[in-house]
Amino acid sequence: MAAIITRLIFWAVIICLFESILSIKPHQRRLSAYNPAIKNLLPKGYSYQTKYFNQQVDHFGFVNEDTYEQRYLVSDQFWNKNGGPIFFYTGNEGDIAWFCNNTGFVWDTAPEFEAMIVFAEHRFYGESMPYGPESYKDPTKLNFLTSEQALADFATLIEYIKSTTPGASNSRVVAFGGSYGGMLSAWFRIKYPNVVVGALAASAPIWQFHNLTPCLAFDQTVTKTFSYYSDNCVDNIGRVYSTIDNMVKSGGSAALSFLSSTFSLCQPLQANQIDTLEGWLENIWGNLAMVNYPYPASFLEPLPAWPVQEACKPLSTTLQDKLLVRGVAKAVKIYFNSTGTAECLNITQQATGNLGDAGWGYQSCSEMVMPMCSDNTTVFRPIVWNYTDVSESCYKQFKIRPRRDWVITNYWGKSLSAASNIIFSNGQFDPWSSGGVLESLSDSLIAIHIKQGAHHLDLRAANKMDTDAVKAARIQEKKIISQWLQN
Amino acid sequence: MAAIITRLIFWAVIICLFESILSIKPHQRRLSAYNPAIKNLLPKGYSYQTKYFNQQVDHFGFVNEDTYEQRYLVSDQFWNKNGGPIFFYTGNEGDIAWFCNNTGFVWDTAPEFEAMIVFAEHRFYGESMPYGPESYKDPTKLNFLTSEQALADFATLIEYIKSTTPGASNSRVVAFGGSYGGMLSAWFRIKYPNVVVGALAASAPIWQFHNLTPCLAFDQTVTKTFSYYSDNCVDNIGRVYSTIDNMVKSGGSAALSFLSSTFSLCQPLQANQIDTLEGWLENIWGNLAMVNYPYPASFLEPLPAWPVQEACKPLSTTLQDKLLVRGVAKAVKIYFNSTGTAECLNITQQATGNLGDAGWGYQSCSEMVMPMCSDNTTVFRPIVWNYTDVSESCYKQFKIRPRRDWVITNYWGKSLSAASNIIFSNGQFDPWSSGGVLESLSDSLIAIHIKQGAHHLDLRAANKMDTDAVKAARIQEKKIISQWLQN
Repeated sequence: MAAIITRLIFWAVIICLFESILSIKPHQRRLSAYNPAIKNLLPKGYSYQTKYFNQQVDHFGFVNEDTYEQRYLVSDQFWNKNGGPIFFYTGNEGDIAWFCNNTGFVWDTAPEFEAMIVFAEHRFYGESMPYGPESYKDPTKLNFLTSEQALADFATLIEYIKSTTPGASNSRVVAFGGSYGGMLSAWFRIKYPNVVVGALAASAPIWQFHNLTPCLAFDQTVTKTFSYYSDNCVDNIGRVYSTIDNMVKSGGSAALSFLSSTFSLCQPLQANQIDTLEGWLENIWGNLAMVNYPYPASFLEPLPAWPVQEACKPLSTTLQDKLLVRGVAKAVKIYFNSTGTAECLNITQQATGNLGDAGWGYQSCSEMVMPMCSDNTTVFRPIVWNYTDVSESCYKQFKIRPRRDWVITNYWGKSLSAASNIIFSNGQFDPWSSGGVLESLSDSLIAIHIKQGAHHLDLRAANKMDTDAVKAARIQEKKIISQWLQN
Repeated sequence: MAAIITRLIFWAVIICLFESILSIKPHQRRLSAYNPAIKNLLPKGYSYQTKYFNQQVDHFGFVNEDTYEQRYLVSDQFWNKNGGPIFFYTGNEGDIAWFCNNTGFVWDTAPEFEAMIVFAEHRFYGESMPYGPESYKDPTKLNFLTSEQALADFATLIEYIKSTTPGASNSRVVAFGGSYGGMLSAWFRIKYPNVVVGALAASAPIWQFHNLTPCLAFDQTVTKTFSYYSDNCVDNIGRVYSTIDNMVKSGGSAALSFLSSTFSLCQPLQANQIDTLEGWLENIWGNLAMVNYPYPASFLEPLPAWPVQEACKPLSTTLQDKLLVRGVAKAVKIYFNSTGTAECLNITQQATGNLGDAGWGYQSCSEMVMPMCSDNTTVFRPIVWNYTDVSESCYKQFKIRPRRDWVITNYWGKSLSAASNIIFSNGQFDPWSSGGVLESLSDSLIAIHIKQGAHHLDLRAANKMDTDAVKAARIQEKKIISQWLQN
């Protein structure tokens, strides 16, 4: 049960947040937007204004008249003020400045479209707290953290921008989003096609829900990404959990000491932390697959190009016992310490203690119930999906219970034939592609599957090390967007 | 100001409820479903089962885990249990049994389609009270009375029926609705096309909102319906208000006595009731136009065929002073007393005292803000539309304020190009046609304009006195529905 909950919390916080979990230590995430190093990721000469819109807290009831200041970022430096389009990023579960600074495709593309750029922050994240510091302290306040409320915020904000910005009243709006933000952009188009002419939903696992995708799919995709480089790598990682278990069982404190030193842990490992250690390892594999980009990531914690390939190098031959653990530790350090500057690693570091994580934890306990399981063919520990346990755990944590089927009824599940003008892009290496739309559903619901692509690679800024596949994807995306704007 | 509020309340309660206001005295309305006279309106041999579904009170928040018993009526007597379609009526603001018994088109049509019939009650009406007798006593409970919650109820109920009824899992569902129920059926299709393949939205004024339709349109349409029979009729009615005003001003108690006796009022008219009397008259003109059916209505209070024609007969020549008032009183009695059995008329009878009215009053103060105004070319008193006054009045009554633009953002306003498979039928005589879709918007958004048609005449049971126009409309509707079910 503990392992299930650990995994659940892991998956609950991982989607999209992976960037911050990976590149910025979790407890730092909320600060990242204000870090000059992050701001510098914007292409040179590009800038935006930070604005706030007085937004309704409850769009779906009229008794609560409270409003809050929703943050949004605007750049009109490329905009044709005579009706040029608006590129509208539907903010994820995190600080919008981070997404603004790391969604280079929008910036790279806006000039040729003469588009205004807007990045809208998702309520309950970043600065957009409906009840300020109290937002997360009271279930009755967290009640307003739903995707429907977020979409209503976006629609209302766009109506406001169009009605108050001279020249924008007839501007067509294109939604962009990656990961959960991509899900939102797709859902935005299906629920508010009056507001957006189309949506680029990058790496959006809109089918990662009950009965739409096998619960094993995510872990299998991670495993495939590792096996792309080495079957031995997968085999080794798959065996490391039982190896650690047996080691601790038979070796006692000496084994704990060996593990502490091999993984360079900041705190000596305790006997009751084996599950935490193994969960921490699992987290890393998922993250590595998602950020298996073709070039070094240049965030606070740099990663090499193709980090899964790098992580698999020390695991390319069959290893046993201590050699196996040492190999896995080397792989881990690719993830956490590729520059060699980290003094020690902290297995309790991830996915705790910040509001972004808490927010997604809440969402995954209400609407975003994504079934996950694993078996012994993956780089994860076998685990079954137990909805009842999830429900209990959610009730314990947030005093709410998930509604498994609502997200499917509300956002149409696989019955998308009435939808139009959505691009679903997914990367071959990205675990979340398992819940994505991988084949075109119609002439205007276009799937783009990017060979060797990781998590919304196409939304990142152009890079000289980009693969031909992602270059081709971006060209196709621009062509389709252009069609939306012409029709 | 008082006149504005009176008019607002009038319009607020009139839509769709007109049937009950007209045919059943308001204070009886909630009982009507159980009245054998009403049940007999169902074609002979037809019957339904009354069922209840345990429904979420709040679909858009997770803190409130309350549920309630939503009533729905099911007939499977014509249903092909091997995947035959489901005809699903999206309940209006009233007792669903009434709509079930008065929507003969669904019953007339189900046999040839081998369709299951479901009539779903709208929350906060009829028996479907989320908090029982407390539902209307507390603003925090009324908070869950919105069209979005009602649509979510319908979607959830359909998923439940399909998943629990053997043979229904692949059944296609067609939404039907008239008036506000028609608005719901159109909105149901645009927001949940995964659940319904199409919608017949009869007399659905989905554009009767801010800046989509001139506020004068409704009153002008009523006036046109009267002028169809007699321009003098319009002229006479238009002058009756000032005639009464002047009469009372100059005639004092003798004038009040004359008015009381001429209108056969149950209580002697008081000097401070002139506004009430005139509002009561205005109410009647709108209602008469809506129910200007080609055959006698056979409800508790029978009406003749073409009642507007009848009402205009005593007003066909130019009348003045007492003769005018007497002519108008004769017209009124066509509406209230065509059988001559009513002993007296009660000017405070309409639109008060039952939950259906209170419910629509609340809805018109939250989402359904329909601007209405009038000038001296109509059968109404001139009145301007003052949103601020409406908002103040709503706050006073319900402790909420309307959100004028939300319904347009949420339900797409006139930007319906992404929608499909909706029939918008409207009648020439129906005042609500002024806010309806009168011209087809695409190959699959079809407008049917019924010559000499009143309020959702096409949804009523076939009648030997039906016009060719409504017969043709029904044939076209069945053909389109058939296409939806085949594709």
